[in-house]
Amino acid sequence: MAQYPRSVARLIDALERLPGVGPKTAQRLALWLLRNPAERMVLLADALRGAADNINLCERCGNFSEGPLCGVCSSERREASVICVVADPRDLLAIEDTGTFNGRYHVLHGVLSPIEGVGPEDLNLEPLLDRARQGEAAEFILALNPTPEGDTTANYLARLLKPLGVRVTRPALGLPVGGDLNYADRVTLERALAGRQEL
Amino acid sequence: MAQYPRSVARLIDALERLPGVGPKTAQRLALWLLRNPAERMVLLADALRGAADNINLCERCGNFSEGPLCGVCSSERREASVICVVADPRDLLAIEDTGTFNGRYHVLHGVLSPIEGVGPEDLNLEPLLDRARQGEAAEFILALNPTPEGDTTANYLARLLKPLGVRVTRPALGLPVGGDLNYADRVTLERALAGRQEL
Repeated sequence: MAQYPRSVARLIDALERLPGVGPKTAQRLALWLLRNPAERMVLLADALRGAADNINLCERCGNFSEGPLCGVCSSERREASVICVVADPRDLLAIEDTGTFNGRYHVLHGVLSPIEGVGPEDLNLEPLLDRARQGEAAEFILALNPTPEGDTTANYLARLLKPLGVRVTRPALGLPVGGDLNYADRVTLERALAGRQEL
Repeated sequence: MAQYPRSVARLIDALERLPGVGPKTAQRLALWLLRNPAERMVLLADALRGAADNINLCERCGNFSEGPLCGVCSSERREASVICVVADPRDLLAIEDTGTFNGRYHVLHGVLSPIEGVGPEDLNLEPLLDRARQGEAAEFILALNPTPEGDTTANYLARLLKPLGVRVTRPALGLPVGGDLNYADRVTLERALAGRQEL
């Protein structure tokens, strides 16, 4: 087999380790990077280095952080009595963007998924139970996706959290705002009806 | 808008500049990298740095190289009389892998494409014409993909090269080995018939 120069082969190899990047895509990315001015590669290399050096997980909630505690946990203005449990930092940002939640978070970094081999030991779980045991919050909102994996994880967490004497809730299921009743799937409509509220 | 810590935002930004990577994919990649041990990011950063520092284009043919001349151009055993013109280093490797070509190469780093805004000035073209003018080789094989862009580029090159007194050829078009006549598209079959050879 004919081969690329060593540095090129090494770059392709490193790119291939990214999720969803196969050998062909890795080659395409490497070629594109090498065809562009070297500054582009240096820019990406520096960004990776910067993240590797500066980012850690918040000691309390597992969110990305540049110090021991993340921005939310170190803020004086957040209510400590409610903890919103999310699967990853993207979900945390989505909730922050609503501007309506003023409690703290706990980031699991995943959901239970037997198919992908993710078990309880792979999640940021024990620290969550510790927070409940230490009485940090009275309510835990399990803001996990309404998918089979999210549901399983929520049920699993509820079984562990409830005996610790805390309130465990999940966001409401129902019709999305602006959605069309006609186009809602059967399960969503069922849940929306079951969760109907007095006007 | 809630935001990631600065180093995370910078990483997402740098990943987003990769071709085919949108904001969602960049976030997904960054989260994945940050969730894994930091060594993974350092590995990729080092590979990028290594490529940026060590790889340049061969002075003669434009192939990737760690020295002034690439492996092919610096080899004593390659025939100098035939130059195979390819669109990128991947195609060069594919031809090397056949083990049947013993000439030198010229890498254009692209093909003409009005739609993508690639014109003659964006290709490694002038050095190719210089090689023809200096009489380095008697034959130029235009090994470009049999696509509209490849065909246009080949015709364009032929028009420039032929007046310089060199032989200009293209690889044969026809049925792929192991292919099925029944499944060949009409144009391929037409070309295969037109290029039929005496047994």
